[in-house]
Amino acid sequence: MAVRALVFDVFGTLVDWRSGIASAFRASGLAGDPAELADAWRARYAPILAEVNEGSRPWGNFDELHLATLDHLLAERGLDLPVGERRRLVDAWHRLDPWPDVPPGLEALRRRHITATLSNGHMALLVDLARHGGLRFDCVLSAELARIYKPAPEVYRTAASLLGIKAGELMLVAAHPWDLEGARGAGLRTAFVDRPLEHGPGSATRADPDADESVADLLELSERLA
Amino acid sequence: MAVRALVFDVFGTLVDWRSGIASAFRASGLAGDPAELADAWRARYAPILAEVNEGSRPWGNFDELHLATLDHLLAERGLDLPVGERRRLVDAWHRLDPWPDVPPGLEALRRRHITATLSNGHMALLVDLARHGGLRFDCVLSAELARIYKPAPEVYRTAASLLGIKAGELMLVAAHPWDLEGARGAGLRTAFVDRPLEHGPGSATRADPDADESVADLLELSERLA
Repeated sequence: MAVRALVFDVFGTLVDWRSGIASAFRASGLAGDPAELADAWRARYAPILAEVNEGSRPWGNFDELHLATLDHLLAERGLDLPVGERRRLVDAWHRLDPWPDVPPGLEALRRRHITATLSNGHMALLVDLARHGGLRFDCVLSAELARIYKPAPEVYRTAASLLGIKAGELMLVAAHPWDLEGARGAGLRTAFVDRPLEHGPGSATRADPDADESVADLLELSERLA
Repeated sequence: MAVRALVFDVFGTLVDWRSGIASAFRASGLAGDPAELADAWRARYAPILAEVNEGSRPWGNFDELHLATLDHLLAERGLDLPVGERRRLVDAWHRLDPWPDVPPGLEALRRRHITATLSNGHMALLVDLARHGGLRFDCVLSAELARIYKPAPEVYRTAASLLGIKAGELMLVAAHPWDLEGARGAGLRTAFVDRPLEHGPGSATRADPDADESVADLLELSERLA
């Protein structure tokens, strides 16, 4: 079965959240290492999404969840920050820069395939990120449309359904093996993109031996799928 | 309240369905006037959507509804056509040309506003039309996401919600007063675009005195909103 459409994870795969959020912490004037604060904030991402998927927390979009995890982080460390500054930090997730290969890579991939986001971030957040980074997709898709977060299979199946194709005709492109594994469980094809700087220099290497493709960037993926 | 985002009706407002569907009828070899057949097919659009919205017909996407209305039309006229040819006619709705002002008009409007489709057509159909016409939107939105058709207020409210803005910050751009009226009922701003050729030369003139803006094309709308 030929791949007809590609859906892309966004945070870490297409945009460099760590540098952008570290800059925002630096601008906030908070004490501490801005990059370490970014890492600590992001570390609360998977647990809070699991709470939503398990039903112990009601549905919330990324602005709501980012504010909740930021509040927890600051409280745990005894750090004080006015509400307006907290809001600015949450808004920083709307203006993250793409990795350098992403704008030309998406253009190249669009020539042969339908392209869309498939992020846990909500639609309005993804629209802002695409405009900020000059990223062109054929369509923006989000876990918000399934009202459950990746790696729940409904998210991947909803994407295939909205694109009018079979799960096996859809390929998820992501830097995270847990996401790719979720996609495979829903019947999608998968492409692993290595983003060795997502968690900063010197972080553990990642790989996904089960992925259909493993590439260094989107331009290499475009060559592979040509 | 400032307008932050624009959503566009598609069939008739952005793309010329009549010429494209008449061409497809011509290619099918069916007896009769191709443009008249296109008009007769399109005339069955509003009634079948009303059946869905009233609950007397289950949800169906445009491919399914177009096939049902085509079958009725051909049966009523005693015309025979193989299934493959019927499928080709339904698929012709995926490859309609935009009005000439649309590609540059959308680019101009994107500079200051978030832009999205808001059509009764399903997501996969809108993606195909955007790719065919080289139309760039920040996001594709459809009545499919609300599982009810325009002019039901849920469709317009769902669009505002997914874009993360208030209804009063969203403007619907459309050539059809019934659609603009539905949008106003849901609290949206409205812009009427005159498309005098939608139903062919010499058809009745349209206007919407209640619209916030009334323009001849998208380039004029871009100047008005600048």
